Amino acid sequence: MDRPLLIFSGQSNRPLAQAIAEALGLPLGKSTTLRFANDNLFVRYEESLREGDVFIVQSFVPPVQDHLMELLMMVDAAKGASAARVTAVIPYFSYARSDKKDAPRISITARLIADLLQTAGADRVLTMTLHSPQVHGFFKIPVDHLSAEPVIANYFATRVDLENAVVVAPDAGDLKRASALARRLGLPLAFIDKERVSDTEVRVRMLVGEVEGKTALIVDDEISTAGSLVEAVEALMQAGAKEVYAAATHGVYVGPALDRIAKSPVKEVAATDTCPPKEGPKLRTLTVAPLFAEAIWRIHRGESVSSLFT
Amino acid sequence: MDRPLLIFSGQSNRPLAQAIAEALGLPLGKSTTLRFANDNLFVRYEESLREGDVFIVQSFVPPVQDHLMELLMMVDAAKGASAARVTAVIPYFSYARSDKKDAPRISITARLIADLLQTAGADRVLTMTLHSPQVHGFFKIPVDHLSAEPVIANYFATRVDLENAVVVAPDAGDLKRASALARRLGLPLAFIDKERVSDTEVRVRMLVGEVEGKTALIVDDEISTAGSLVEAVEALMQAGAKEVYAAATHGVYVGPALDRIAKSPVKEVAATDTCPPKEGPKLRTLTVAPLFAEAIWRIHRGESVSSLFT
Amino acid sequence: MDRPLLIFSGQSNRPLAQAIAEALGLPLGKSTTLRFANDNLFVRYEESLREGDVFIVQSFVPPVQDHLMELLMMVDAAKGASAARVTAVIPYFSYARSDKKDAPRISITARLIADLLQTAGADRVLTMTLHSPQVHGFFKIPVDHLSAEPVIANYFATRVDLENAVVVAPDAGDLKRASALARRLGLPLAFIDKERVSDTEVRVRMLVGEVEGKTALIVDDEISTAGSLVEAVEALMQAGAKEVYAAATHGVYVGPALDRIAKSPVKEVAATDTCPPKEGPKLRTLTVAPLFAEAIWRIHRGESVSSLFT
Amino acid sequence: MDRPLLIFSGQSNRPLAQAIAEALGLPLGKSTTLRFANDNLFVRYEESLREGDVFIVQSFVPPVQDHLMELLMMVDAAKGASAARVTAVIPYFSYARSDKKDAPRISITARLIADLLQTAGADRVLTMTLHSPQVHGFFKIPVDHLSAEPVIANYFATRVDLENAVVVAPDAGDLKRASALARRLGLPLAFIDKERVSDTEVRVRMLVGEVEGKTALIVDDEISTAGSLVEAVEALMQAGAKEVYAAATHGVYVGPALDRIAKSPVKEVAATDTCPPKEGPKLRTLTVAPLFAEAIWRIHRGESVSSLFT
Amino acid sequence: MDRPLLIFSGQSNRPLAQAIAEALGLPLGKSTTLRFANDNLFVRYEESLREGDVFIVQSFVPPVQDHLMELLMMVDAAKGASAARVTAVIPYFSYARSDKKDAPRISITARLIADLLQTAGADRVLTMTLHSPQVHGFFKIPVDHLSAEPVIANYFATRVDLENAVVVAPDAGDLKRASALARRLGLPLAFIDKERVSDTEVRVRMLVGEVEGKTALIVDDEISTAGSLVEAVEALMQAGAKEVYAAATHGVYVGPALDRIAKSPVKEVAATDTCPPKEGPKLRTLTVAPLFAEAIWRIHRGESVSSLFT
Amino acid sequence: MDRPLLIFSGQSNRPLAQAIAEALGLPLGKSTTLRFANDNLFVRYEESLREGDVFIVQSFVPPVQDHLMELLMMVDAAKGASAARVTAVIPYFSYARSDKKDAPRISITARLIADLLQTAGADRVLTMTLHSPQVHGFFKIPVDHLSAEPVIANYFATRVDLENAVVVAPDAGDLKRASALARRLGLPLAFIDKERVSDTEVRVRMLVGEVEGKTALIVDDEISTAGSLVEAVEALMQAGAKEVYAAATHGVYVGPALDRIAKSPVKEVAATDTCPPKEGPKLRTLTVAPLFAEAIWRIHRGESVSSLFT
Repeated sequence: MDRPLLIFSGQSNRPLAQAIAEALGLPLGKSTTLRFANDNLFVRYEESLREGDVFIVQSFVPPVQDHLMELLMMVDAAKGASAARVTAVIPYFSYARSDKKDAPRISITARLIADLLQTAGADRVLTMTLHSPQVHGFFKIPVDHLSAEPVIANYFATRVDLENAVVVAPDAGDLKRASALARRLGLPLAFIDKERVSDTEVRVRMLVGEVEGKTALIVDDEISTAGSLVEAVEALMQAGAKEVYAAATHGVYVGPALDRIAKSPVKEVAATDTCPPKEGPKLRTLTVAPLFAEAIWRIHRGESVSSLFT
Repeated sequence: MDRPLLIFSGQSNRPLAQAIAEALGLPLGKSTTLRFANDNLFVRYEESLREGDVFIVQSFVPPVQDHLMELLMMVDAAKGASAARVTAVIPYFSYARSDKKDAPRISITARLIADLLQTAGADRVLTMTLHSPQVHGFFKIPVDHLSAEPVIANYFATRVDLENAVVVAPDAGDLKRASALARRLGLPLAFIDKERVSDTEVRVRMLVGEVEGKTALIVDDEISTAGSLVEAVEALMQAGAKEVYAAATHGVYVGPALDRIAKSPVKEVAATDTCPPKEGPKLRTLTVAPLFAEAIWRIHRGESVSSLFT
Repeated sequence: MDRPLLIFSGQSNRPLAQAIAEALGLPLGKSTTLRFANDNLFVRYEESLREGDVFIVQSFVPPVQDHLMELLMMVDAAKGASAARVTAVIPYFSYARSDKKDAPRISITARLIADLLQTAGADRVLTMTLHSPQVHGFFKIPVDHLSAEPVIANYFATRVDLENAVVVAPDAGDLKRASALARRLGLPLAFIDKERVSDTEVRVRMLVGEVEGKTALIVDDEISTAGSLVEAVEALMQAGAKEVYAAATHGVYVGPALDRIAKSPVKEVAATDTCPPKEGPKLRTLTVAPLFAEAIWRIHRGESVSSLFT
Repeated sequence: MDRPLLIFSGQSNRPLAQAIAEALGLPLGKSTTLRFANDNLFVRYEESLREGDVFIVQSFVPPVQDHLMELLMMVDAAKGASAARVTAVIPYFSYARSDKKDAPRISITARLIADLLQTAGADRVLTMTLHSPQVHGFFKIPVDHLSAEPVIANYFATRVDLENAVVVAPDAGDLKRASALARRLGLPLAFIDKERVSDTEVRVRMLVGEVEGKTALIVDDEISTAGSLVEAVEALMQAGAKEVYAAATHGVYVGPALDRIAKSPVKEVAATDTCPPKEGPKLRTLTVAPLFAEAIWRIHRGESVSSLFT
Repeated sequence: MDRPLLIFSGQSNRPLAQAIAEALGLPLGKSTTLRFANDNLFVRYEESLREGDVFIVQSFVPPVQDHLMELLMMVDAAKGASAARVTAVIPYFSYARSDKKDAPRISITARLIADLLQTAGADRVLTMTLHSPQVHGFFKIPVDHLSAEPVIANYFATRVDLENAVVVAPDAGDLKRASALARRLGLPLAFIDKERVSDTEVRVRMLVGEVEGKTALIVDDEISTAGSLVEAVEALMQAGAKEVYAAATHGVYVGPALDRIAKSPVKEVAATDTCPPKEGPKLRTLTVAPLFAEAIWRIHRGESVSSLFT
Repeated sequence: MDRPLLIFSGQSNRPLAQAIAEALGLPLGKSTTLRFANDNLFVRYEESLREGDVFIVQSFVPPVQDHLMELLMMVDAAKGASAARVTAVIPYFSYARSDKKDAPRISITARLIADLLQTAGADRVLTMTLHSPQVHGFFKIPVDHLSAEPVIANYFATRVDLENAVVVAPDAGDLKRASALARRLGLPLAFIDKERVSDTEVRVRMLVGEVEGKTALIVDDEISTAGSLVEAVEALMQAGAKEVYAAATHGVYVGPALDRIAKSPVKEVAATDTCPPKEGPKLRTLTVAPLFAEAIWRIHRGESVSSLFT
């Protein structure tokens, strides 16, 4: 595109947006977001977007609804200000777990949000590690769906002795992702079968696969309260695992997460900076800013993004 | 409509929803809203909505974005659960002040929200006293736009000696509304001309009209921080008004509002219950639940809503 | 945009279109509009529009419906002929007064027309002084909304002694606009409160503000039959105004307008050429062709239009 | 439909609407259409339409654009007033001849109007004898397309001695329609091949088929200026036809039509009342009000309309 | 709905449609599908659908594209014939495996088909066991998603000694479904990890979980060529399983499927009649016609479909 | 357009696509289409399409539904892969005969397909000789509609002695097209009136016009089973025609077509290569690849396509 490349950021993860802009050798675009006393948001771009190729970086971390609405307003304002193309860059697409109707009379909220973004005027989406790959299909507009798998594989490969390791999916729904990582690292696979007890509680039902005496590498899409993670660690330790490492794309770390991790026998927990990094003795942050910068550059230039992965 | 009439409520103003349901002789429909640790909302209806004529009551009071998203999810879930018709009942449509582009590169957020509601699947909207009547036209779907004017006129008529009173618009944009009330009460009119100094600050420029020795009746669409209100009261007192009363449809009362009112020479401030009522020595609440109940009944029965006003 | 810039004109105001094209140093594009015996219109472009950046100039002056339909057909034909982008340039958007539902069972026709233009294929709109700024939000597509305020302010500043002048809004709905002009000229403000007696008749209810001995400057968005204007002039003269000038963006001047102005004590009435200028001893025409030309050029070049106003 | 059946009329052909309503035993609904001095139309329904099954009768006769816009506004206002379903009854759909792109850079206006009607909110269309049957497919909404063929066949059968008659298509494009009538009446067929000389002029090129000594029955979809008709009559008389009758669904009769018919050797010209009937010594009007009434009744009751034709 | 309930069938699985209609005590609606010599399809309903509540039964079995197009045409024709509501009943939604972008520059065809169905005019969808539950979210219209799990659980419970059995997922992607069945039957779980070698070939990578000496119950969503199935059987037998049973919702059985099953050591293979049943010594058919009939009845009557599952 | 021009081909007529690409001096783009055992199609582009100006060539020849679906998937995949613009090049748009509702409760399938293509994401269509020109209006997106008339006229002019020839329309619906050719060649015109006996059978009713002793030139849009053609030839020979030639744009030649032509007294039958050419002693193929190449080049370059015809 001959249009100027412009990178703007919402309030959710400005350090990542800043790092992406820097990697591109561009200043971060100037915009203002205010919150009025009545909790109404107000966004305004402080520079012209006319005919620009605009990328707006926003992660759906808490407060999720404010960040979602800020993004919708930024997209809407960008279109109204005659941007040539608006790409919503959503490193962490939080509602992606609401991707099916596993109870009656609920909202498939990930699809709803996809529709809302398109209504606001988004022309494309750039995101990373959706909870399920099908969420891609909730969008009618083009989506570039990056994967943190190479970054995570590299982390394990450089940090852990893979000689006697096993990849573990902490939930049946994560098996596909764990299976891909296991194949990439040439490791066996195990998983933890769980059952939902209530809206907010799930319980380990059984561990399937061989982990005794092995280094267990838990891989997940996101770590939220870390409840699921510490239960998996416990189940693995009880089953005789030698030690346990964990890595996830999205380190949301809400509520008791940091405390739980500190108390858990897990050796280390790594996550990328799609969410603003948290500090902690066992926590490791893996940056994906260069990956996003490269993807934005290729989208802007009309070059293949898929070749990023080969 | 032969469909069953069902009233549900979001979390923003359940007392009003309850009062509306009671006025209709119906139980409030059962639904659950949860907030997960990662700040994702989850809504579920606990009873069948199939082929129902569903009304969902939600006011856009703080936290505004959560209430907006909850409403969008409830509308979406209701449509997915095969409701025959979904009416979004929004007693207080907060973003209605974002109704024009008075600065470059901003969002006309009231239009954006109208679009979002339609995308989520709303078939109709029922609301009260939009900041400007043009916001009605932001919706493609039918809107019933109730007015609190009769309730407010009745309040002034029963509470104040109208003999020597004047209706005052606290801002040029409110003049149409104040003019209508003045005609209804047979009173003269005055207004306060202001100018915006910054995004968050406006200043009284001049008072136009005659108020000396009179009882001034300020009428506004909403009271938020009450900053505008107390300045108007001050300007009126300085101009020699005998006493000042104020009434607004929407009593949002955020931030310093209650404190400001307490310290102001204003005699009394009335607002309806479109927002959850606040307590205070000078505060008065006027209920509009019967009005909403009657409107819902007529919409459900296919009877004229406009005849409510004659 | 690298596309060629092409300016076409409907039949409503070809002199303005011609002046805009000249200001841009471009010939006016060739197109034919025929009216068949059965009153069907037929439009055809006489030159290729492929990949062009097309601007079509049309004001909604009488016969309004023919001009509206001609514009819709020109937009449709331009899209079908593979124009890259079509901007409807509507210097006078006549139906903008139908912007709310102030009676039951009517059409918010300004919104309807916005939808019709988008259905026909318009990508953008460029217009001037909409009756209410909210009409901007009736469009989903980008709108550039020019203001005649600087032109009118300049007219008053050069034509009238501002020493002892007052700006007058002839209707409560015009107060915002009058207030802005008053601030720009550093003048006090007054307004005339009216009430609607029937569909076609309104009556002066009271004059609010101080005008005695002053030069009154009436400012309005449009002058149609001039009924409202001459009543305002009368009310001002009765209230002791020294003399009265009037200026409006849109000089439609229909029916008895010219006769009424001739007989009125008003000193002079100015309007821009968004509508084809009328002749008369007290009439003055202010051209906005350079303003439209500049806006079109900036839209075409992707430069900020808002900076036109600073 | 359990909804009340409501028939309204635009200004184009109230006698037909009245006759349809009478045939249904219903009063014509009350509505007001005003034209303001600035040529803006205003429509208002004077009775509630809530949940009604609304039919609006409007023919696209001159002034075509006003009638089209009035219909769009009536449809829009009906939807905004919560009509359950709105059917646009367009006995004469005038722009149907603009149904293809036979020149570059023109509008397929029949498709455009179909889109405009749907944008305004029409749920269905009921019409008669579209210029080409493909225009049906321009609508996404259901269309009931009535035919005047039985009425016209009956007219010829009762008015003319069919013993030695021939059906004549006055243009290659009408051949399908003429062929159907010929089969229905058991008659041979002829046609007149024409060529377009300019936008407004066509010329007879040749007469194909045998007409000498026969009674020629010209059948067409519409008679506008009657230019085409009188040329056909002349060509037929020159080719030795004994006498010529003509019948068309739509008798628009504009400009020189009545004069031309009076001076032509044609014996009689019949048309239905889809357009307001004109008076003249050779003119005959065939009413289709009962046909429209029956169709509306069946649509309202959910009964087969196609069985009307068997 | 007060509308008449009408069941029609495409050509893909008329026996199932017949069985559903019979279970509802209704005749199957009359419709004709022709295939012209040029391979164009033609569909026509032989009875009135006006205001009917129409259900059209069509499974996407080979020839898939013909069945898809026939369904689209039937939906389109039903809407054009004024059906009040059209539900596409798709017992086997074949393209559901194309639900994500696991290679660059491919189509998420399940989403595409969802869009095509909505464009054709479908108001709702009723289907069974989508490959992934997220496909539900590809539809904007309401979807009722039935599960064959109870039927399959009942089959295993009555056919197999569950004392020493294990549920096996033949692929990581099926684990969620297998896990649910395992919980329902109170059995342990195992799965087979595979890797894709080429577009058409996948290979068993490892078996995770304990199967030695046990009766293995393979559960899958569909059996197509049975290649995946017989490999799983082999892997299980090699791992020491005592015997293997298999059940799938959709028994497509294409190409070498029947032959492969005959030669495999699998004891029995069961599938429902969402696809037309095939004959074979080890094959068992489980009917879901009563389940579909009950769901259709509830949808028609506006009763809860989810309560079918409790 | 500055975008790279990319030509891809579906499976229906790769030789034509190849010839078009060659005429443009471009390689045909690499893409893969697979058919899985369950008859699901799979398409994948083997090179980047990002920001490309993509043209996909596909004729709707048998198997029509597979070719239609392949095209929809290719369009969808191209949009998802970020093509800047996708033009569906459909040399033979087969369903164009389903362009009206000549029986109740059928689908206007040509309109349906137009909608499906737009839903899949097509930005434009390039096609040739639609059965009726109105089908153009079924598309909302721009259509370039090429004509084979010059190629056919040239064929007759160089192959036949035009001295004593007559152009014959084999059906009333083809008369417009035949009339245009007759005018171009300066020849008289005749036509064959037919009547439909059943869904699949039509019968010659009468021959209108003079053919005795003349060379008859039948012109049609397509030849499918050739039934209509050989009947026309017979009728012409019986009416004393000296010899008969035929030419059609689309030589579909299905079922008994080749056999019928071989046995018929027709001298020669010519068709273009919009469908893959068939071999036969009397068959002639006229190539339109250069015409399509030129049109694609002009569309790509933003030059007038209509000037191709002058």
